[in-house]
Amino acid sequence: MKVTIDGVNKDTWTLWREGYTVSMIDQRLLPFRVNVLRSRTPHETAIAIKDMAVRGAGAIGVAGGYGVAQAALLAQDFRLPEFKRYIDEATELLKGTRPTAVNLSHAVDRCAKAASRGTVAERVKAACAEADKIATEDLEASRKMGEYGNDLIESDAKILTHCNAGALAFIDNGSALAPIRVAHRAGKKVFVFADETRPRSQGAKLTAWELQQEGIPYALIADNAAGHYMMRGSVDMVIVGADRIAANGDTANKIGTYEKAVLARENGIPFYVAAPGMTFDRKCPTGAKIEIEERSPEEVNWVWGNDEFGKFTKVRISAEGTIAFNPAFDVTPARYITAFITEKGVLRPPYRRSIREAFRKRRRGSTA
Amino acid sequence: MKVTIDGVNKDTWTLWREGYTVSMIDQRLLPFRVNVLRSRTPHETAIAIKDMAVRGAGAIGVAGGYGVAQAALLAQDFRLPEFKRYIDEATELLKGTRPTAVNLSHAVDRCAKAASRGTVAERVKAACAEADKIATEDLEASRKMGEYGNDLIESDAKILTHCNAGALAFIDNGSALAPIRVAHRAGKKVFVFADETRPRSQGAKLTAWELQQEGIPYALIADNAAGHYMMRGSVDMVIVGADRIAANGDTANKIGTYEKAVLARENGIPFYVAAPGMTFDRKCPTGAKIEIEERSPEEVNWVWGNDEFGKFTKVRISAEGTIAFNPAFDVTPARYITAFITEKGVLRPPYRRSIREAFRKRRRGSTA
Repeated sequence: MKVTIDGVNKDTWTLWREGYTVSMIDQRLLPFRVNVLRSRTPHETAIAIKDMAVRGAGAIGVAGGYGVAQAALLAQDFRLPEFKRYIDEATELLKGTRPTAVNLSHAVDRCAKAASRGTVAERVKAACAEADKIATEDLEASRKMGEYGNDLIESDAKILTHCNAGALAFIDNGSALAPIRVAHRAGKKVFVFADETRPRSQGAKLTAWELQQEGIPYALIADNAAGHYMMRGSVDMVIVGADRIAANGDTANKIGTYEKAVLARENGIPFYVAAPGMTFDRKCPTGAKIEIEERSPEEVNWVWGNDEFGKFTKVRISAEGTIAFNPAFDVTPARYITAFITEKGVLRPPYRRSIREAFRKRRRGSTA
Repeated sequence: MKVTIDGVNKDTWTLWREGYTVSMIDQRLLPFRVNVLRSRTPHETAIAIKDMAVRGAGAIGVAGGYGVAQAALLAQDFRLPEFKRYIDEATELLKGTRPTAVNLSHAVDRCAKAASRGTVAERVKAACAEADKIATEDLEASRKMGEYGNDLIESDAKILTHCNAGALAFIDNGSALAPIRVAHRAGKKVFVFADETRPRSQGAKLTAWELQQEGIPYALIADNAAGHYMMRGSVDMVIVGADRIAANGDTANKIGTYEKAVLARENGIPFYVAAPGMTFDRKCPTGAKIEIEERSPEEVNWVWGNDEFGKFTKVRISAEGTIAFNPAFDVTPARYITAFITEKGVLRPPYRRSIREAFRKRRRGSTA
């Protein structure tokens, strides 16, 4: 992804690993400051995930894998007597940070499994290799989602997206924004409506910023305005990401996604979900079984941003003692979804079958 | 409405007139500070409407009427040679402040017409009397909407509302919140989901605060969460206000209302619009003819609130130079509306007929 730091526009990733050290763009400070947070322990990585310094289905999956690699490296270097217990504890810690996105537990489980056989040295090597493989797969999946998704985008398309399923939600390029990037680079004229996505406003803070950095035409809108533009015929398609997709295609994604899906269908607008294989939870039969993370009411009552003097600060928008509910995700039933854009191609209904067939080979070949 | 000022919980109105002086609770400072803004000229009143110190369909209607009364009083006291021209200018100024809500132009036109016959003294008296009559009608309409709407509310009802159609949007009690107040006072158990209502967050700043003051159980939610709770069966009914209702029942209201209406129908939840006769624009055939006010992108890019030290401040939530669109209203087609709650009773489809019949007498008897 392109990021302008001190006036220089350069390519960077959302997170990466060098030995112990996991480096992550601290997304809580965006778009005001590009600051790289460095974590050297699985605990620090877990905190970064929990506090959403790193967020987005793909990115927290990769971060979780890196966390297990950190645990293995630490256990080896400090010659901890109970290697397995230490890995198990780190695994539980990392998986417990965010319950809804399945990439996280998939990635953590894969790395924990890789660390379960052979000598300590072999285990460490395997855990690190598996974590790096997840990162490579993530990069490759974004690239392919971009290509497959691009085929669905016509020139002059006006595309609505919700939350941030961009480069910042993965290692690079993203899921929902990947096809838009590819289309833009291919010279198609595209225009993006970016939903603000309260309560954390990832659309305003991350998606609008990513699009601005790439020079892709866009407008930020309040979440409330999406339906208005759909009804007026200003939106040709919707592309969103996902945090967990059940075997039948029911999709958990950022709160508000369900609203946009219903409005898209009501207005005859195709609604696409872009997600890599890692986000599909074949063990979860339907959306009813997906746990919805309830986050702090503070996120609804307070807003973070830069004041007029450029000082990062928070303001409360409601009276003291205001009661707020804050579900972080909702579930969009499969019937509202036109197709899934995956690294295996575009999956159409019936989803139980198309999902099974797309990821059959991968399931045999990998430990996911 | 009940307001706690310096620890004392007392009854107050949203705005009132004493001679020249129009006093208004400055809604831009709520819920942090209850400050009464005083305007002594139609120009100050117009600015207060434009800047949304006073807002809400009913309240800006009353304020507009008061503005004409101020113009008449000023023209008389300063012995302005061209009384009519001064009234006409004030009329245009006041009507131009907010284009979507019809109450404003209805009220201003009524007072201007009252000021058009007889001696200057008679004109002034008539304009003031008409302005005060509009305020009295507003109070009475809220009272009746409360009673009629209450009949639709069952005990244990969980009610979703959008924006603020409460006491602060009228002189007192409100439109959408009036039935909820009556139900609560009658001892019915009610619970309100208050949509935050970005970009100006009137749900967080005004509705949650009003409900808190009245002791009515509620939860503030992000606009994105409304669909989630509807799908989960947690919402029994939706009641919203309106800014302009066309002859066929198409309804302009705060941006996002259309989204909630579509979601309500999708989930089999009754969707009610509470509005007084003044909000019905019989000259407007359908929603397609309603002008939608586009407000400053600043409202999307910046958020106002109290910082941790209680200082009223604003923060920007997006990068410098972020492009934002900010339509203030949307139009909900009549087919999504279960019924209108008015001071003449509950109006059911077909709306063209029920609206015409409900307001037939009023139209003959008044100048609206």
